Amino acid sequence: MADPLYTFFHPHGVAVLGASSNPLKLSHGVLRNLVTHGYSGPIYPVNPKGGELLGLRVYASVAQVPDPVELAVIVLAAERTAEALAACGERGIRAAVLIASGFAELGAGGREREAELQEIARRYGMRFIGPNCVGVIDTYTPIDTTFSRTMPEQGVIGFVSHSGAVCGGTMDWASAVGVGFSRIVSLGNQADIDLADALASLAADPNTKTVAAYIEGVPDGKRFVETAARMTPHKPLVVLKAGRTPSGTRAVASHTGALAGADQAFLAACHRAGALPVDNLEELVDGAIALAYRRPPAGPEIAILTNAGGPSAVGADALDRYGMRLANLSAETQARLREVCPPGTMTGNPVDMLGGPQPSHYTAALRVLLAAEEVDGVMVVFVPQAITPPHDVAVAVGRGAEQTAKPVVCCISGGGGIGAAARALHAHSVPHYLTPARAALGLGALYQYGRVQARPPVSLEPAAGVKRELALEVIGRAVKAGQRALDAQAGAELAAAYGLVVPPSGLASTAAAAIALAERIGYPVALKRVAPGVVHKADVGGVALGLEDSRALRTAFERMVGPGEQGFVQRMAPPGLETVVGAQRDSQFGPLVMFGLGGTYVEVLKDVAFRLAPLDEVEAREMIDETAAGRLLKGVRGQPARDVAAAADALRRVGQLVADLEQIAEVDLNPLIVGAEGEGAWAVDVRVILAG
Amino acid sequence: MADPLYTFFHPHGVAVLGASSNPLKLSHGVLRNLVTHGYSGPIYPVNPKGGELLGLRVYASVAQVPDPVELAVIVLAAERTAEALAACGERGIRAAVLIASGFAELGAGGREREAELQEIARRYGMRFIGPNCVGVIDTYTPIDTTFSRTMPEQGVIGFVSHSGAVCGGTMDWASAVGVGFSRIVSLGNQADIDLADALASLAADPNTKTVAAYIEGVPDGKRFVETAARMTPHKPLVVLKAGRTPSGTRAVASHTGALAGADQAFLAACHRAGALPVDNLEELVDGAIALAYRRPPAGPEIAILTNAGGPSAVGADALDRYGMRLANLSAETQARLREVCPPGTMTGNPVDMLGGPQPSHYTAALRVLLAAEEVDGVMVVFVPQAITPPHDVAVAVGRGAEQTAKPVVCCISGGGGIGAAARALHAHSVPHYLTPARAALGLGALYQYGRVQARPPVSLEPAAGVKRELALEVIGRAVKAGQRALDAQAGAELAAAYGLVVPPSGLASTAAAAIALAERIGYPVALKRVAPGVVHKADVGGVALGLEDSRALRTAFERMVGPGEQGFVQRMAPPGLETVVGAQRDSQFGPLVMFGLGGTYVEVLKDVAFRLAPLDEVEAREMIDETAAGRLLKGVRGQPARDVAAAADALRRVGQLVADLEQIAEVDLNPLIVGAEGEGAWAVDVRVILAG
Repeated sequence: MADPLYTFFHPHGVAVLGASSNPLKLSHGVLRNLVTHGYSGPIYPVNPKGGELLGLRVYASVAQVPDPVELAVIVLAAERTAEALAACGERGIRAAVLIASGFAELGAGGREREAELQEIARRYGMRFIGPNCVGVIDTYTPIDTTFSRTMPEQGVIGFVSHSGAVCGGTMDWASAVGVGFSRIVSLGNQADIDLADALASLAADPNTKTVAAYIEGVPDGKRFVETAARMTPHKPLVVLKAGRTPSGTRAVASHTGALAGADQAFLAACHRAGALPVDNLEELVDGAIALAYRRPPAGPEIAILTNAGGPSAVGADALDRYGMRLANLSAETQARLREVCPPGTMTGNPVDMLGGPQPSHYTAALRVLLAAEEVDGVMVVFVPQAITPPHDVAVAVGRGAEQTAKPVVCCISGGGGIGAAARALHAHSVPHYLTPARAALGLGALYQYGRVQARPPVSLEPAAGVKRELALEVIGRAVKAGQRALDAQAGAELAAAYGLVVPPSGLASTAAAAIALAERIGYPVALKRVAPGVVHKADVGGVALGLEDSRALRTAFERMVGPGEQGFVQRMAPPGLETVVGAQRDSQFGPLVMFGLGGTYVEVLKDVAFRLAPLDEVEAREMIDETAAGRLLKGVRGQPARDVAAAADALRRVGQLVADLEQIAEVDLNPLIVGAEGEGAWAVDVRVILAG
Repeated sequence: MADPLYTFFHPHGVAVLGASSNPLKLSHGVLRNLVTHGYSGPIYPVNPKGGELLGLRVYASVAQVPDPVELAVIVLAAERTAEALAACGERGIRAAVLIASGFAELGAGGREREAELQEIARRYGMRFIGPNCVGVIDTYTPIDTTFSRTMPEQGVIGFVSHSGAVCGGTMDWASAVGVGFSRIVSLGNQADIDLADALASLAADPNTKTVAAYIEGVPDGKRFVETAARMTPHKPLVVLKAGRTPSGTRAVASHTGALAGADQAFLAACHRAGALPVDNLEELVDGAIALAYRRPPAGPEIAILTNAGGPSAVGADALDRYGMRLANLSAETQARLREVCPPGTMTGNPVDMLGGPQPSHYTAALRVLLAAEEVDGVMVVFVPQAITPPHDVAVAVGRGAEQTAKPVVCCISGGGGIGAAARALHAHSVPHYLTPARAALGLGALYQYGRVQARPPVSLEPAAGVKRELALEVIGRAVKAGQRALDAQAGAELAAAYGLVVPPSGLASTAAAAIALAERIGYPVALKRVAPGVVHKADVGGVALGLEDSRALRTAFERMVGPGEQGFVQRMAPPGLETVVGAQRDSQFGPLVMFGLGGTYVEVLKDVAFRLAPLDEVEAREMIDETAAGRLLKGVRGQPARDVAAAADALRRVGQLVADLEQIAEVDLNPLIVGAEGEGAWAVDVRVILAG
């Protein structure tokens, strides 16, 4: 696939608009970085003052800049940026980086100014990054259009960030421990080039092996998911999203004006995209380093090699939290370890070489462990002691980790003297961590990515027997009647049109009509009062269940249904486990399906799973597996197994329904009653809210 | 309270047994540290070779060491340690630090050798730390009996650790960023002085303001809880325990041979002790720094002051995860901020001063925020930029944080250049963190500690109406009959003796007898088959519920109860919510009470709360509040509120029962049916397993 941002990273000629001679100005920093960080093409400072800067001729206007020039970096105040962009367009430049802040992040006035930029770009067929960004870096070209002091080292991590400060902070930190980057993309307000464009570019970049993204809002959730899903089978993607809690959402809104969206939708999108979500900046870098340097383990069995029992125990606890565990080392492996380790080494797992191992012991023991069939990966935990220099141990670990596909991570703890050791490890493609818990997170990211790669591609074949026209007709009737929600009968018909199994039902205005209906559909029946504004029926005593005969139905009808109201009569579903299936729309990621335990429990337990709609059989079964409802469906002590296949089928049909029909805002099957294995699942109470 | 380890930290004279002239030996390191790290009392190297070492006379034996000598540090191989300890005892030394490994951590043989040390200590009335430890440090005396290269700076954190490597790693790391310690205690195998002793000592030490503990096993859980509970109202305690997962438990067992105990029991013990459990080493230090330097916030309302929107959004998300949130800044506060901040500052929360604040802006803005009534604490998030040096910002933040009781934490991110800034912050008692999520953890530890301090002391008044003698009689009968579990009737009687409400019941061997019984206690009744080996009744069809009359009872009896078996007949409890109450014993922390949702759900949902037994009313209500069962008890949509007070009373009585009666291994009330408010709660199925 072609790189949609190729010109930004490999331009023939760069103009810097606003280049200043004042070294305290950002515009000076941009020019300085272009000149001193290795860019080999022509550089054109532009400033009406003219003259010379850093040995380069300054052009009074961009119109005067000679060929070749493909990229403009505009470092002017917000109010002068649009004009400069237009001048670049006029000059034939088709790619621009806009540094200034003072746009959509300020609210209404700023949004207008930002729309102007979009209009200019459209007019000239330009693409731009920003505004409100710090620019882009490619360490291989090399080119650095930012004003950051330090140019990152060459590496294999592509980093994309909404926030310039996150770029700067991460580069600072990474360079101190020898972590390199292939590319850095600061997206800013994403008025033109957005997250999905950046991902597509990094996916196409041969130097980028792993992508780490810091994001706030996702302007086009669907494109993000599609682009990421194309990339993640080959290149891992770790994502930190701010604005996942109420306070974070507020902070994001005040920062970039982005809508944070619902956290469950974001997680569902990551799942579909094969992206690995993390909770904070250290996890973002910790995960990216592991994914950049090593391949996923074939399984969860990990060996720990150490000189420090306490810290390895902490590491072992952390392994469990990421779904991995200590491997059982075979007698043969332990015998081989005894041959190469210092006397007294405890060859169980953790392999504890106690106080006195030499660097060569690490190399030899690591090779034994990596060769062992029962070991899927190794964590080395070294606490520096007076005698053995950390750097020598790092080199020894690096050597031991050569020529293996199995992952190795290394924790070397300590303070100031660790930098050289970290660099030595990274030079050997062994991720370094300061603490065992973070090393476990690195392995955990690899393990999780292995499971992403093992997943079959999502296959969205539509379900059989869907009558979309019939569904549209049901919705059309409600819209015509001015309803914002379907009544119980219309809900049942809509569900049935999508192949959900709904017990036979109908509406009746009188007790006599209800009885006639019940005779036709068969007793026992349920009666529900249908009246405008009554949504949560259990609240108002509006449901009578298990009515066995006409007498019981008449009594219930006369008690519940007032004049001008209707009764919804439905054949009782067979007994089963009450689950709930819901669907709703997220502003960023579109339709979502939810599954959980039904009845009054669902609100209290909040034990639910989400997926993007539509979804496939595999995803539907995953949702079931993730929930307590699913564990109950499979049958626990004293309870029979239920029809999991029918529940999964219902989930797929609800997903298809909400994905097909944009007229629907929300669907709620509460409950979906799941019968015994092979019996099916019945949607007995279908609430449907129409889109505003 | 007196310091039980006073002599270890303030000895008049220290003998070093095994002091070697070889600088690569640990024993040389110990002597060197005593000499060079400031200890001002007399130091006596002991080595049969005699001579002189580091300018000190070497004594051929400890018997020859002159007065005063109060502490011995024994740095000899395991097989020579016991003899040396005895020689110290003979010489009149009553405190010793034993460095050697090769004891209980090796298994059976080592345990024997360790028992010998205990025997010698008993004989001479000595106390010792270790074996298998790295010694103790007091930075105020000062005295350093370890062989670590670096002496920590003076500080207010007392650090206690089972693992020497954790001590070493933590000191290294802390010294690089200017975090000081009051005392370090490496406990090793705890053959004599244990965690509780160390906590009592740190509680009594006037220089220690906060205690951080790394622990593996807890040899005397009850003493740990009691000692910690006395300390934590005044001094916070952060605890990292290894061995909380299956892999961690295995690692701990292979490391020190300690039993890890059940995680739920550890968490219940922390709750009672007022200790703050953390998950890894960075959280241990991050939490301790905050607790050492600042006071808890009065509430959860936090302001963020920043030059970096993205990182503050990540910080805001993390605040929510610790139960805090962004404060709503009043119009007045925002107006005052506008007066002191750079133009363009966004004065909502986060307060974002954007790209160009000077150090003085941080001081002024911080003072405004700390003076605001609506703000309980402040997080400063600073990402270094080209222009403002991090150290200057650190000093400015330190100044702004003076003269306030409200907590301030500061994140300054970046790589190499941060050391001086971190030191400047710590010198101003402002905790420094490298990332916003860790800063939020620091504030979170303070917030959580504030809630520990606000908790009323546990008040373990026994419940009224307990007939202990009657309970003992019930147990005695079962023991006499050779039963390992009480039968249903005996279980009911035991529960009733402790004041639990149990519906009337009895045993019957024939259908006729069952009917006679039912006539007496009243229909409807439940019938349960009582037969040896039948514990989980629901599995075998051994329960019939809601038998309304003699015919139904007879039919059920004849179907279920075989010859030689008995039927347990019990009046049906009124309808209510099924919860489960359990009690069990942990090997380290003793009896525990559990509460959760009853029926088949409990096993699937694992939504349960634990407390140590006995427990008080406040704790019983907390348990209820923590669970989904509790939320259901309080009444959700369409469901009435239940008798929470009766459920809490039942929890207390079960706690008292298991705490009183050591003969009981396990109790299980499944279900405890909780009726409507004011109606009570009924224990209808009481399983009791007796202690082996």
